[in-house]
Amino acid sequence: MKVLMNDQITKRNDIIIDIEDRGYQFGDGVYEVIRVYNGNAFYLQEHITRLIRSASELKMTLPYNEERLLTLLNQLVAENQLIEGNIYLQVSRGVAPRSHQFPEHSEAVLIAYTYKAARPLSLLQNGVSTILTEDIRWLRCDIKSLNLLGAVLAKQEAVDAGCHEAILHRNGTVTEGSSTNVAIIKEGTLYTHPADNLILHGITRQIILECANDLCIPVREETFTVEQLFAADEVFISSTTMEIAPVTSIDQKTIGSGTPGPLTHRLQQAFEEKIKTLKHPGTEI
Amino acid sequence: MKVLMNDQITKRNDIIIDIEDRGYQFGDGVYEVIRVYNGNAFYLQEHITRLIRSASELKMTLPYNEERLLTLLNQLVAENQLIEGNIYLQVSRGVAPRSHQFPEHSEAVLIAYTYKAARPLSLLQNGVSTILTEDIRWLRCDIKSLNLLGAVLAKQEAVDAGCHEAILHRNGTVTEGSSTNVAIIKEGTLYTHPADNLILHGITRQIILECANDLCIPVREETFTVEQLFAADEVFISSTTMEIAPVTSIDQKTIGSGTPGPLTHRLQQAFEEKIKTLKHPGTEI
Repeated sequence: MKVLMNDQITKRNDIIIDIEDRGYQFGDGVYEVIRVYNGNAFYLQEHITRLIRSASELKMTLPYNEERLLTLLNQLVAENQLIEGNIYLQVSRGVAPRSHQFPEHSEAVLIAYTYKAARPLSLLQNGVSTILTEDIRWLRCDIKSLNLLGAVLAKQEAVDAGCHEAILHRNGTVTEGSSTNVAIIKEGTLYTHPADNLILHGITRQIILECANDLCIPVREETFTVEQLFAADEVFISSTTMEIAPVTSIDQKTIGSGTPGPLTHRLQQAFEEKIKTLKHPGTEI
Repeated sequence: MKVLMNDQITKRNDIIIDIEDRGYQFGDGVYEVIRVYNGNAFYLQEHITRLIRSASELKMTLPYNEERLLTLLNQLVAENQLIEGNIYLQVSRGVAPRSHQFPEHSEAVLIAYTYKAARPLSLLQNGVSTILTEDIRWLRCDIKSLNLLGAVLAKQEAVDAGCHEAILHRNGTVTEGSSTNVAIIKEGTLYTHPADNLILHGITRQIILECANDLCIPVREETFTVEQLFAADEVFISSTTMEIAPVTSIDQKTIGSGTPGPLTHRLQQAFEEKIKTLKHPGTEI
C-alpha cells in the first residue's frame, strides 16, 4: 500500500511521524474518511471543503489548496488501484517543541492512505442494534478533529454490549452517534439535530436531506429528545462508511416494527442511485 | 537527547511512530509532565500513580508496572544528565488498523524524553496576567489524555491577548486553567474546585493543599463562580511547570491589590521548602 505524505506518494515504511508532531501529543489536527465506490472517490469535493473548514476553525493552514488536494487524493486512489474501500486523510499542525499554544513556525503534516472495505450490505438490509449513552465530548463536535476519545469510549461501550453503535444524548437531547449522525422519522417527517457545534456536519447527512427533498419527505432540522427517539416510527444512523443504516433496537428496546422502516428504505434507494449515477462525483467541481 | 521508547533508551532519530498509532489518529493515550529539580524527578511516584489511573480509566494496559516505570524514568534523567527541566512521558494504546473501538490486540507505545527548562522565577515573583474563557472541553478532564484541543485553543486565546493563561469556566463556575489548576483566597480561606471529572487532579494542587494544611490555612474544595473569582483577595494558578503562580489580572481587571498576595507568598515559600528538602522524592517509595 502506498501512502501520501504531504505531496509525495511513497511506501508506507518510508513514513516517519515525529514524536513531537502535535497530532501525536495534542490530537492537534483534522481528518476525513472518504468512500471509494468502483474506483471513484464519492463526494470528494465536499470532504475536502469540510477538511478546509475544520482546519480553519482550528486556525491551521493546510499545505495545499482544494484543487491540489483533489488531484493528490485521486492519484493515491489510482496508484493503490482501489476499487471498493476508503481513503483516510489527516493533517496535523506539524512538529514543534511541546507547548499548548500554537507554534510560531510549524509545517502541517498530511498523511493519506487507502484501504479495501466492502459495503456493509447486510447491516443496510437488516439494520443495526445500538445503545444510548451520555455525550461527554467537547462543545466543538462540528470540527472533525483528532480528539476522538469521547467517541472511542462510546463506541467501545456499544461493542461491549454487542451492538454496532452508541447513540449519544446531552442532558436528554439526542445529538448523534459515536461515528454517525442520527435521524428519526415520526409520522412521515424526518427529524435530525441541527448542524450546530454539537454534531459533525455529516456529508452523508447532507446527501440524505437532499434525497428527502427529492422524495418530498418533510425534514425538520430540530433537536429531539431521548423519549422521542424511543417513540420514533423509524430511526437510522448515517456516515460515509455506514451509509444509511436502519436502527432496529436501542438498549435492547425495539424501534418501530423492529425491522427497517419504509421511509428509511426509500432514502436508501435514493442514495443507491447517487452511487450508481455519479461516475466521477469527486472530480465534478 | 536520548529518548525512552518502551523500555529502551535510544537516540531520538531512531524513533519511528506509526501512522496507525492510535495516539496519532484518535489522541488515544495518556501523558505526564514531571519536573526535575537539581537532577531529581519531583514527586515522580505521584505522577506515575496518576498515569496508571488515567490509563485505567481508558481501559488501557500500561506496558510496565509502577516500579519499572520509576526505574526507567530515573535512568532517562541520568542518561540525559538533566539538572533543571522536565520529563515528558506519554503512552498510547498502540498501533492497529483504524477503527474507533479498542483493537483486540495492540501493544501500548511509551515515549519519554527530557528537556531543559528554567524555573519561571520572574513570573512566580511578579505574577501573571490571564483571561477568562468558556470551558468547552469534554466531561472527563480528570483523565490526563492526549485529547488536548480544548486546552490548546484556550491557551492560544490567552497568548493572543498577551496573557499567560486562560482561566476556564463552565456556565459561570470556574473549573481550572488551560494547563493549570486555579485557586482563590477569600478572607483567609483557600477555595479550589473539587477533584471531580471536570478538572485535572493536579499533583501541585495536592501539594498546595498539604502546604495549606501545614500553614493552618483553611481549605474548601468547593466550586466558586466567576463573580467570586473576580472578587477574590488572591488568585493563583498551579502546575508542575508553573509551580504556584500568582494571578494579578484577569481580562485586564486587577485582582486584589494587583500584586502577589500574602497567603500565595506563604504557600510559595512552603512549596520551595519541599523542593529543597526532598532530595530524591521520586525514589522514596
